Amino acid sequence: MKVKELARLLNGQVSGDEDRDITGIAGLENAGPHELAFAEGEQALRGAGRSRAGCILVPLGTTLGGHTLILLSHPKIALIRAAEVLMPPQAPPPGLDATAVVDPSAVLASDVRVGPHAVVAENVTVGARTFIGPGVSLARGVTIGADCVLYAHVTIYSKVRIGDRVVIHSGAVIGSDGFGYVFADGRHKKFPQLGQVIVENDVDIGGNTTIDRGSLGDTIIGEGTKIDNLVQIAHNVRIGRHCVIAALTGISGSAEIGNYVVIGGQVGIGDKVRIQDQAVIGAQAGIPTGKVVRRGNRMWGTPARPFSEFKKTYAQMKNLPRLAKKVNELSRRASGKAKKV
Amino acid sequence: MKVKELARLLNGQVSGDEDRDITGIAGLENAGPHELAFAEGEQALRGAGRSRAGCILVPLGTTLGGHTLILLSHPKIALIRAAEVLMPPQAPPPGLDATAVVDPSAVLASDVRVGPHAVVAENVTVGARTFIGPGVSLARGVTIGADCVLYAHVTIYSKVRIGDRVVIHSGAVIGSDGFGYVFADGRHKKFPQLGQVIVENDVDIGGNTTIDRGSLGDTIIGEGTKIDNLVQIAHNVRIGRHCVIAALTGISGSAEIGNYVVIGGQVGIGDKVRIQDQAVIGAQAGIPTGKVVRRGNRMWGTPARPFSEFKKTYAQMKNLPRLAKKVNELSRRASGKAKKV
Amino acid sequence: MKVKELARLLNGQVSGDEDRDITGIAGLENAGPHELAFAEGEQALRGAGRSRAGCILVPLGTTLGGHTLILLSHPKIALIRAAEVLMPPQAPPPGLDATAVVDPSAVLASDVRVGPHAVVAENVTVGARTFIGPGVSLARGVTIGADCVLYAHVTIYSKVRIGDRVVIHSGAVIGSDGFGYVFADGRHKKFPQLGQVIVENDVDIGGNTTIDRGSLGDTIIGEGTKIDNLVQIAHNVRIGRHCVIAALTGISGSAEIGNYVVIGGQVGIGDKVRIQDQAVIGAQAGIPTGKVVRRGNRMWGTPARPFSEFKKTYAQMKNLPRLAKKVNELSRRASGKAKKV
Repeated sequence: MKVKELARLLNGQVSGDEDRDITGIAGLENAGPHELAFAEGEQALRGAGRSRAGCILVPLGTTLGGHTLILLSHPKIALIRAAEVLMPPQAPPPGLDATAVVDPSAVLASDVRVGPHAVVAENVTVGARTFIGPGVSLARGVTIGADCVLYAHVTIYSKVRIGDRVVIHSGAVIGSDGFGYVFADGRHKKFPQLGQVIVENDVDIGGNTTIDRGSLGDTIIGEGTKIDNLVQIAHNVRIGRHCVIAALTGISGSAEIGNYVVIGGQVGIGDKVRIQDQAVIGAQAGIPTGKVVRRGNRMWGTPARPFSEFKKTYAQMKNLPRLAKKVNELSRRASGKAKKV
Repeated sequence: MKVKELARLLNGQVSGDEDRDITGIAGLENAGPHELAFAEGEQALRGAGRSRAGCILVPLGTTLGGHTLILLSHPKIALIRAAEVLMPPQAPPPGLDATAVVDPSAVLASDVRVGPHAVVAENVTVGARTFIGPGVSLARGVTIGADCVLYAHVTIYSKVRIGDRVVIHSGAVIGSDGFGYVFADGRHKKFPQLGQVIVENDVDIGGNTTIDRGSLGDTIIGEGTKIDNLVQIAHNVRIGRHCVIAALTGISGSAEIGNYVVIGGQVGIGDKVRIQDQAVIGAQAGIPTGKVVRRGNRMWGTPARPFSEFKKTYAQMKNLPRLAKKVNELSRRASGKAKKV
Repeated sequence: MKVKELARLLNGQVSGDEDRDITGIAGLENAGPHELAFAEGEQALRGAGRSRAGCILVPLGTTLGGHTLILLSHPKIALIRAAEVLMPPQAPPPGLDATAVVDPSAVLASDVRVGPHAVVAENVTVGARTFIGPGVSLARGVTIGADCVLYAHVTIYSKVRIGDRVVIHSGAVIGSDGFGYVFADGRHKKFPQLGQVIVENDVDIGGNTTIDRGSLGDTIIGEGTKIDNLVQIAHNVRIGRHCVIAALTGISGSAEIGNYVVIGGQVGIGDKVRIQDQAVIGAQAGIPTGKVVRRGNRMWGTPARPFSEFKKTYAQMKNLPRLAKKVNELSRRASGKAKKV
């Protein structure tokens, strides 16, 4: 594809050699003379001068001598569009691999691909163009929408419902029993785990992430929410729309999370916590059982406090040894004799 | 099943329409006119008035006009029993799926079910009525007891021994090599990992949890212990009976944990830590290498301290900036000149 | 094998019965009269007196009446060598299981073993003597070197490159998409994830660990680095040689880690963090986005501080309630009236 064709597609303006051929995409440091890169932000733009990229997407108003540029308002977003055209995903041809085990009662829409050794149990429904990777296991009664991608070794337990355009990475487990027990007669007796998991449209679920079914109600992941690798979502959790949840975070039973919430890595969220829309929870923070985080609040620490308060306290903490010494001196002077705090 | 039959089964007392048909179980908010719910605790009982449930299990002495109730001493425990009768688990029919690979030397007891694409290697033993899910891998010499459930994609390494009534969720890995190395000649040399994993009766193991084999001795999970998703248990760890270990917790090599210990989510337990019976470790706490936690102690924080001490310190931490200011003022007055801590 | 033969092999000196037969290896507490154990360090040597081991590897200069010993400079390292001889790993016979699905375009070197239900896609290359376990999935274009072991249910995404003598435990996922999104028009749009993962020689990867592909560049794991179970390594992370990374640690996008770095369990490392050679990060520490940890530094806490500073501050923290009380008293005296901090 020529630079001028790309510019037209991206609604940008060429500066430099508009007839250059672009065949792929790479980072600023690695891109070669036929590759497209992007630069956004001060640091990247300083680095762009040394790049060997054939063409660089840059913000309007950028000047960069000796480079072919496409100027547009949002270079990073434009690169997403460019990648769709220059490097479209290679979809495997539709069809059922001969080694897949598909129950006769399963209903597979047109152009579904089922990979080797996949298992599709009784009464499963799969929507159009969905890809079921090698070794994926769909238990009885599972419903999966259209245009989904389930990579190798995904496990979906019975009756889980998954929307359209959902991407689930390898090893993810959806619909396992919630961790609910009642202690009686000296042992932990399992509480019934009879609910479902409902995953709405456009959700991404990372590798080896686990999402438990509800015990009596359902576990719900709202539309457009993106979940990283190795995240734990417990029974009856309800997550709203367009949230982002980073790796190794654990969300405990019956927690409710609003829309557009951002949760860092390794965050712990206790039972029945309520996090309102647009809140931001910093990495490794811990939100204790039952706590309410208000709309738009930013929290950090364990137990979590407002971000600005946490930072102030933290700054004082390293002065603590000097503070203690000072108090001891004052105390000595005040009492006229040596005394230790 | 009629309400009066349920009441007889649960040893409870009916208040209301004893002839109503009950066909399922649901939460208070979702239950319909033919579903059973339960209410225990002040908040739930307040909510019960608005429930449309056909019948509600409530504590003795509860009054709730216009609802059919079964009164008994422990509603939540009674619900477990009711679920066994109203919604029994649908066991797949016994037999070996045609695509399962079972070594001729393996010994499978009566009524074992082996799902599609499961692999059962040499000299494996499986007890009566155990369910081996799709794609499960049992390596050579594994022993599994009776009435176990191994969901899809569980991996059991060679020689691991598993008791009766053990439930293992998808993606769990049991018997992988311990993370033991000796540093010599500028590289990390792997220390032999020759021990086993022994999982006793009535243990539950969550999805994608990993349990390493012992290096020279064994890793042991005691009877009735319940382990959540994404938990890491290292080589030579010994866990006692009836413990509860929440998600994303990591237990390091050779740690010893007593009986009836409760460990919250994302807890980190160092090498050779000893935790005595009935201790409680709060979520995200970190117990440093070699530390002993005494019987019944409750710990929180990193490094962990007794719960009450942690709470007191934590309460002071947010006053720290004001405390520092106060000390500066006192210091200025005392010395008669401006001085900063 | 006789004790004297072992001593010759290990370059050690026998004290005791040099003709005793040794058939296996065990820990000091469990070893029987025909098993080899080792004792290194004061505590172990005190325990060695009570051991029933047939032979004990001990440091030069050790005396221990009534026991057969082999004296040498590094008992623990010698045990590694002894295990290779006494308990060699039982390699399965080479060959392709009849149920494996191997694309005709795949190139498998001599003596490769492919287990039941494994899937080897188009243009995969596998080096000599490598073991591909049951149900392993290798996507198109994957390259794996010689003498590797991939245990059951490992998933390798397309184009990932793996060196020689790499060990990957069950459930590990290598090459999944990075967690990169751009927020636009009220939703998170996925940024292209087009890079690769490169795993160099002699790397170990633990069970259920996840390593994401680079977005535009590559994710790289350097030679000899050892990674524990349930670790998350994000897109474009670069890890140097001979590092050790313990379980449940998460390393965020574009972080760079030098050589011989040691990272404890449950550590969180932010985006673009740079950790220089030989640094040590304590368990559960959190290194904020963009931070640089200097060569050889030891860090602990969240946000992480130098280890010695963290310990000093921590020691003061438990005195905080008493310190606050003291300041209040001083304040009262100074002002002549009751006042609370």
